[in-house]
Amino acid sequence: MEAYFDNSATTVCLTEVKDIMVKVMVEDYGNPSAMHMKGVEAEKYVNNSKEAIAKCLKVSPKEIIFTSGGTESNNMALIGTADANKRKGRHIITTKIEHPSVSATTKYLEENGYEVTYLPVDKFGVIDPNMLKSTIRDDTIIVSVMYVNNEVGSVMPIDEIGKMIKEINPNTVFHVDAIQAFGKYRIYPKKSKIDLLSVSGHKIHGPKGIGFLYINEKIKVNPIIFGGGQQKGMRSGTENVIGIAGLGLAATKAYEDFEKKIQNMYLIKQKFIELISDIEGIVINGKTGYESAPHIVSVSFEGIKSEVLLHALEDRNIYVSAGSACASNKPAVSETLKSMGIKKELLDSTLRFSFSVNSTMEEVEYCIMILKELLPVLRKYSKH
Amino acid sequence: MEAYFDNSATTVCLTEVKDIMVKVMVEDYGNPSAMHMKGVEAEKYVNNSKEAIAKCLKVSPKEIIFTSGGTESNNMALIGTADANKRKGRHIITTKIEHPSVSATTKYLEENGYEVTYLPVDKFGVIDPNMLKSTIRDDTIIVSVMYVNNEVGSVMPIDEIGKMIKEINPNTVFHVDAIQAFGKYRIYPKKSKIDLLSVSGHKIHGPKGIGFLYINEKIKVNPIIFGGGQQKGMRSGTENVIGIAGLGLAATKAYEDFEKKIQNMYLIKQKFIELISDIEGIVINGKTGYESAPHIVSVSFEGIKSEVLLHALEDRNIYVSAGSACASNKPAVSETLKSMGIKKELLDSTLRFSFSVNSTMEEVEYCIMILKELLPVLRKYSKH
Repeated sequence: MEAYFDNSATTVCLTEVKDIMVKVMVEDYGNPSAMHMKGVEAEKYVNNSKEAIAKCLKVSPKEIIFTSGGTESNNMALIGTADANKRKGRHIITTKIEHPSVSATTKYLEENGYEVTYLPVDKFGVIDPNMLKSTIRDDTIIVSVMYVNNEVGSVMPIDEIGKMIKEINPNTVFHVDAIQAFGKYRIYPKKSKIDLLSVSGHKIHGPKGIGFLYINEKIKVNPIIFGGGQQKGMRSGTENVIGIAGLGLAATKAYEDFEKKIQNMYLIKQKFIELISDIEGIVINGKTGYESAPHIVSVSFEGIKSEVLLHALEDRNIYVSAGSACASNKPAVSETLKSMGIKKELLDSTLRFSFSVNSTMEEVEYCIMILKELLPVLRKYSKH
Repeated sequence: MEAYFDNSATTVCLTEVKDIMVKVMVEDYGNPSAMHMKGVEAEKYVNNSKEAIAKCLKVSPKEIIFTSGGTESNNMALIGTADANKRKGRHIITTKIEHPSVSATTKYLEENGYEVTYLPVDKFGVIDPNMLKSTIRDDTIIVSVMYVNNEVGSVMPIDEIGKMIKEINPNTVFHVDAIQAFGKYRIYPKKSKIDLLSVSGHKIHGPKGIGFLYINEKIKVNPIIFGGGQQKGMRSGTENVIGIAGLGLAATKAYEDFEKKIQNMYLIKQKFIELISDIEGIVINGKTGYESAPHIVSVSFEGIKSEVLLHALEDRNIYVSAGSACASNKPAVSETLKSMGIKKELLDSTLRFSFSVNSTMEEVEYCIMILKELLPVLRKYSKH
């Protein structure tokens, strides 16, 4: 048996997604900028994907800009907004538990004359909207808050935050990193007062190397990549039609049978939590019910190095992450877990189990069975 | 019959390229940053592609950084180098006929405190190395010159330029946009004193949405996209393993049977030029022999709007570009043609025919036959 529980790191492509991408690669391979039919055909894929995504979000297709992925979307949201609004102010607010594609970018902006406020989180990995309230200033140009945390699955009160920002300073742009949330929640930027929304293809059974940034048409954002003026000058470079076609289809598929799929994922997660809670010396980080994301569980294992357990599980075809998977092979200490006040000795003993629509109860039972077998042995070893 | 003569805009994916991409999409879909086997497997594709590309260029695999395409490669080369070297100087040299992914980026740098010298070209679209010589200064941090011009196929004296730059100012970085040259020329950066080299996947029968930047390990370049620290911090974001696998294979394939394929392309081009020269009222822009690129011919048609001829050809399944294809649907006046001193009345009457390894003599003959049929009719119309 195999249990791939690393879906927050990346997901397998849907068959339909693969099929449409193959069609674009070998048949409809034109350059969308070309004036002839092969260009028009290619452009149709781009427009169809924009429309499909816009429909999911209830926004206008012209508010969707394709990027090379979630990281570029977050970079564009922050740097592009900062650059376009630098005369209005230089203050940025974000949280202490953002993904590095946000936190490394705000750090870059700090080095370039911007002031950044990093909001703390509670023990569940959630910010206090009242604390945000007191930090918004006249010169606050952007607030960037993730929808779902990638390490523990905590969910931020996005609606409340959006409302609050616009009440205090209507000029402040609200950016939401929805990379772990899109396809798991129904997200309506207009309703939630979200101005910018980042999404990645490969977290929703779409391809790697593609993502989008929703940009409210009333918001001023500068491009961060310059060239031929594609995508109305907002993101130059020949459009990645192959990836765009795949992303559009993956987005549509993510919201088909949506309630049923999400409910199933919660059942899987609940089963996992129920069974793992029987095991001694484990701590589940963050909330566990419907207040948390349907696909992520963070578990600390007392007395065991996460890397050791990860590889022991791998030997039994169970694939998980240690801390965040995004720190490129280095299991660095997690800022998220630290900010949540997780005990120091557990920081390096934490694994993330992340599910998808493909996950099954059998896989959960298999995983727990193997954990019950491995943990006593590994704990015995680590005592020596 | 169909003749796709728009290969400088984009090319069809090779079957083998499509196959390896499908494998990565549905089987080896791991995140290269994941510590388990599925991550290691994915990382192998990244490493294999780096090695394949490094072998083509005779450089070290660690000098290859994957980007989202040629445009990002050119942006990173220019902005990344400018940012890393701003204390050494703020002078940049480039040419008047660069692709917009270079010229729009140098314009952005001009708006941000850099001084840019734009070198003129002769009537063949080639710069005079002696003119470059006199413009290199102590504070010149980068010289950016394209290898092959995308509109007329002119070839710059890259070896001579590289040698000259390093003789005058060894600290000046030499960037070459090789997007139209890679796969058409054997390029050895170490030998030609090229420090940075931009390449795109979809011009060499690889996928769209992927490219690379060769960075000489001795050169200081800053990243322009921030995040999880992938690719040794030089380009954050989950690697586009699907595209990277395709690009690596496309690069290897481009240099298989290389001499034979290039010779064939020159024969196709020569045949095309020979046959089209029989037609009255045409002008071929730039050089035509082995001094020009094997795959690009620029032709001006007296008394005919390029857009009209383009669509008339399209009706007969012949696909070409008007001016540059990269100006996203707008047939803007070509800076390249203007800089070459093309007669004003021909600027808007120019088409680019660009070939690939798949182009055949039959397609050339078919295209010429159709041109001979269409031109008298169209010219008659445009007189009224």
